[in-house]
Amino acid sequence: MKKGCKYGSHRVLEPQGVLTQAAYKIDNNMEIYSNEILVDVQSLNIDSASFTQIEEEAGGNIEKIKAKIMEIVGERGKQQNPVTGSGGMFIGTVAKIGEDLKDRDLKVGDKIASLVSLSLTPLKIEEILDVKPEIDRVDIKGQAILFESGIYAKLPDDMPENLALAALDVAGAPAQTAKLVKPGDSVLVLGAAGKSGMLCCYEAKKRVGPTGNVIALVRKQEQADNLVKWGFCHKAILASAQEPMAVLNKTLEANKGKEVDISISCVNIPNTEMSCILPVRDNGVVYFFSMATSFTKAALGAEGVGKDVTMIVGNGYTKDHAEITLQELRESETLRKIFEERYI
Amino acid sequence: MKKGCKYGSHRVLEPQGVLTQAAYKIDNNMEIYSNEILVDVQSLNIDSASFTQIEEEAGGNIEKIKAKIMEIVGERGKQQNPVTGSGGMFIGTVAKIGEDLKDRDLKVGDKIASLVSLSLTPLKIEEILDVKPEIDRVDIKGQAILFESGIYAKLPDDMPENLALAALDVAGAPAQTAKLVKPGDSVLVLGAAGKSGMLCCYEAKKRVGPTGNVIALVRKQEQADNLVKWGFCHKAILASAQEPMAVLNKTLEANKGKEVDISISCVNIPNTEMSCILPVRDNGVVYFFSMATSFTKAALGAEGVGKDVTMIVGNGYTKDHAEITLQELRESETLRKIFEERYI
Repeated sequence: MKKGCKYGSHRVLEPQGVLTQAAYKIDNNMEIYSNEILVDVQSLNIDSASFTQIEEEAGGNIEKIKAKIMEIVGERGKQQNPVTGSGGMFIGTVAKIGEDLKDRDLKVGDKIASLVSLSLTPLKIEEILDVKPEIDRVDIKGQAILFESGIYAKLPDDMPENLALAALDVAGAPAQTAKLVKPGDSVLVLGAAGKSGMLCCYEAKKRVGPTGNVIALVRKQEQADNLVKWGFCHKAILASAQEPMAVLNKTLEANKGKEVDISISCVNIPNTEMSCILPVRDNGVVYFFSMATSFTKAALGAEGVGKDVTMIVGNGYTKDHAEITLQELRESETLRKIFEERYI
Repeated sequence: MKKGCKYGSHRVLEPQGVLTQAAYKIDNNMEIYSNEILVDVQSLNIDSASFTQIEEEAGGNIEKIKAKIMEIVGERGKQQNPVTGSGGMFIGTVAKIGEDLKDRDLKVGDKIASLVSLSLTPLKIEEILDVKPEIDRVDIKGQAILFESGIYAKLPDDMPENLALAALDVAGAPAQTAKLVKPGDSVLVLGAAGKSGMLCCYEAKKRVGPTGNVIALVRKQEQADNLVKWGFCHKAILASAQEPMAVLNKTLEANKGKEVDISISCVNIPNTEMSCILPVRDNGVVYFFSMATSFTKAALGAEGVGKDVTMIVGNGYTKDHAEITLQELRESETLRKIFEERYI
């Protein structure tokens, strides 16, 4: 067996010099290198933006959706939508482990979910078995390859597969929260009623302990009432995350007149950067998990108001993020129940 | 005197709820609030993208450029280009200090440069005296207002005004470098031959001390030779910042086979996120100062290669950034000479 590049660059066909995500076409030959893992794929969870685009192009016709996906993977060697650029993830069973990765806590037959994007993952589809448009899922017969750097999670035995997947989908946010938040901190979570928002609130509340203050920003009274009732935050405030002065004033009111130590953005709308920055004290941290964040609006915005805050780009990966996130569902019966009701 | 909002929101005319940068129109009445500073403006340094747009629209005609600027400021109460959204900065003399800001180290008559954008600064132009297209500068008779949160730098007595301005323009980067880099660190600076790149290299080399390693990434052999000769880095490597595998391999070669502790991006081209992320060790820091950085490419890119790095959005402001940056020019005769030759 030959050894490949840790990051998979040995599989880039064109253009040369980039990594597999930026590549137009990658090598999906399923003979593995010594530092790769071969997986028998059961399902693809197509990224929502990508699936919607394919579905529209196909006029909702299932056979046309299948044909489009076969065409993309045939052409590019990976399921990367040429319009949206996005991919998704897969679920499957480990078929073969390269000899350089034998030491891993993984064996042939283990069921795993990929936590890297399909947009960079070598994939070969033999047959599409089913398309489930309501959950953006495509069941297939086929194989995929994980590189040495490719992250994945073993699916746990103690909860349904779909429950685990719903949480793993946003695993970066709560795990980063766990590492960032210290006892006694005051924390503002924007977009607190969504999936990642709730996980971040829960984790932050646990970390700040009895002397801290977790403030959840939401749009609706019912959401605020629920988050407080469930014990996911100390206080919940109502405001539009696009109105920074309102967010600032309500946060101050909920934090004894003081700016918070940390803000965490889990919103799904644009133009909320100033609402994340303004309420944070000098030398505090602004953690942008929202993919709707604009780099320039954050950088110029903080400068414009003379705020000396550390602004962090939410990395979807941090060590043990899958385990940290699944543990939340084991710890909190409330959280698990909400996830079961809403997301599976 | 009435007291205004620290961030200037009392001057927003439309739409309500946003801050002055996001506002379409702000109040440029020059009667100050108790926490504002009135400045007699001498020159506007129009943001390069904005000036180019205005110049093109005016077909290069100076009188038409003047008319366009008068029109923008008349309509919006600030010099914010409606096409590019960007502003610039001003130089002027303090005319009046609101009573709540009397304790500042500032007096009427001091010459200052604004370090917040014109895109959020109330401005009234009485007359445009001159337009200098070669340096994007507009000399005017007029006044501007700084809010309580508005940052500025007193222009120093010991160097020419234009020299100070050239450095202050990018003051955030070297000042953040000063706070981030520790003795013994290995640091990769991408885009090291540019203005902010050189300042970051110089500052990083000073901070890492004798046991550290500062690696400058540039495009041309001459740039590499110069940076080493001037003592701004330990090693200089040649590669395109858009080719992450080449950047990784050359960095490893220049760092005894090890990933670096910190990378600092000062490039002025897009699609360089992976080149900043790949060469950094787990738990290291990636500091994006480049305005060409894409938030989503950074976030998804790090996840895609399973890199547990802290990615920071370059904040143009950090405490004492002007002083830290001007000090570099005082310390290093070489740096000062290069700046005098190239940037003024």
